[in-house]
Amino acid sequence: MGLPDEQIHPIATGRAAQTVEQHQESQDLVFYSGWFCPYVQRVWITLEERGIPYQYKEVNPYKKEPHFLAINPKGLVPAIEYTGRALYESLIICEFLEDAFPDHEPHILPSDPFDRALVRLWTDHVSKQIVPGFMRLVQAQDSQKQREYLEEFNKALRTISAQVKGPYFLGEQFTLVDVALAPWVVRDYIVAEHRGYSREAVGNGWKEYAVQLETRESVLRTQSDRVYYTEIYGRYLRDEAQSEAAKAIRAGRSF
Amino acid sequence: MGLPDEQIHPIATGRAAQTVEQHQESQDLVFYSGWFCPYVQRVWITLEERGIPYQYKEVNPYKKEPHFLAINPKGLVPAIEYTGRALYESLIICEFLEDAFPDHEPHILPSDPFDRALVRLWTDHVSKQIVPGFMRLVQAQDSQKQREYLEEFNKALRTISAQVKGPYFLGEQFTLVDVALAPWVVRDYIVAEHRGYSREAVGNGWKEYAVQLETRESVLRTQSDRVYYTEIYGRYLRDEAQSEAAKAIRAGRSF
Ligand SMILES: N[C@@H](CCC(=O)N[C@@H](CS)C(=O)NCC(=O)O)C(=O)O
Ligand SMILES: N[C@@H](CCC(=O)N[C@@H](CS)C(=O)NCC(=O)O)C(=O)O
Repeated sequence: MGLPDEQIHPIATGRAAQTVEQHQESQDLVFYSGWFCPYVQRVWITLEERGIPYQYKEVNPYKKEPHFLAINPKGLVPAIEYTGRALYESLIICEFLEDAFPDHEPHILPSDPFDRALVRLWTDHVSKQIVPGFMRLVQAQDSQKQREYLEEFNKALRTISAQVKGPYFLGEQFTLVDVALAPWVVRDYIVAEHRGYSREAVGNGWKEYAVQLETRESVLRTQSDRVYYTEIYGRYLRDEAQSEAAKAIRAGRSF
Repeated sequence: MGLPDEQIHPIATGRAAQTVEQHQESQDLVFYSGWFCPYVQRVWITLEERGIPYQYKEVNPYKKEPHFLAINPKGLVPAIEYTGRALYESLIICEFLEDAFPDHEPHILPSDPFDRALVRLWTDHVSKQIVPGFMRLVQAQDSQKQREYLEEFNKALRTISAQVKGPYFLGEQFTLVDVALAPWVVRDYIVAEHRGYSREAVGNGWKEYAVQLETRESVLRTQSDRVYYTEIYGRYLRDEAQSEAAKAIRAGRSF
């Protein structure tokens, strides 16, 4: 029974499996994760970057188990529990980790108010343009639509690339924009293999920036073996996925 | 020539006109506003709430004049200029005003990290569910669709209402959630008159919360006369508006 999405590989593999292994002990902060999830990876990267102690707990969010719905009524990973309170939504958790652990270096938000705003502005571009653009492209079945969505996706990538100071978005500091975007960079081979995307074709220095993101230590440490991601994306590529995100994209709704 | 949206009443009226009058003098912070715009009103409420000195400048964003495109390449109001740098996107400006003016009381973000996260989480609900839900309902022409979108909109309002501590979202403190939502509350008469919406029908205490928001002093001070809002919404109600938001809603895109 259950959704087809429920049949996912149950645990992290590769480098991510080692990281999971190192975070089994009980800690004040409990991190409810799904190894496969790009939104989860944002929080995971932030925890690793900032050296915040956490206990890793694997959840299959497609099962919607009551104990997890009590933590996140939306039933989505990532979620966290800390000092008796629960929180969800990847970017909000990342900002929370800044506010709640101000003494942990490095920070993923710069200290200058204008730079913080700039980081939030472009994180918003990732959320509103790049991520839905990727999803639309993956889920499109019609070849005319695929071409149209590929052009839209490339345009969204080109726009942010033009703003990158290098090596990271804001320069030397690795910030929330990089965190928000990196999980889709490590998954872009999906659209390269199936939808005609290529990093080179984007232009504007996108390829160089993408390499910086995917080779960042915190990104590598939260990465599972490709073969398991590929298995999950099969359902999206056939537009059979029944996740909340897949349904929202199909309905033209914000997610 | 130009878009039909370009023919808007040129200046604020009613209480808002008085507020504009009081903010003509040159200041370090320049506020690029459109009196009619709900996103603008968020920033305006924040400036008024926190007593931040600002110079008001009226812009017609539908004209896309070069001097304004230099400030916001998207050509949207609100935008600000401060210490030689420019910024846009209403919620990001509101957060910026917190970061850049930490000594101005009151704050629209609470100091407790969990409460801040809660405020951001529900502000996100306003952005992703309530605002697009309102727009979809206004723009829908088919009566079956109107009924469907009204139910969706009511549901989004009911969901947030259930979380309101009263009198404001977080309790006594007036926060970013209230700021983000209030401009659509003062405009809900549009859907009441044309789409069968009623505050009473929402339930869950929505009506009481809505009254708290619309009678807040900063909301009243940034409010123009209804007749001028009504004129603008005519184009949306006939689904003729050519604004970026109207086009995004039509295309099922995030905005
Ligand atoms: N906007 C959420 C999205 C989280 C999300 O969609 N997580 C997926 C896994 S990648 C999930 O839990 N899906 C369960 C479902 O869709 O039922 C965030 O940023 O945290
Ligand atoms: N997401 C933006 C939306 C701002 C916006 O859409 N402003 C409208 C006026 S209400 C505008 O400038 N429209 C000009 C256009 O669409 O061309 C924000 O939150 O600031």
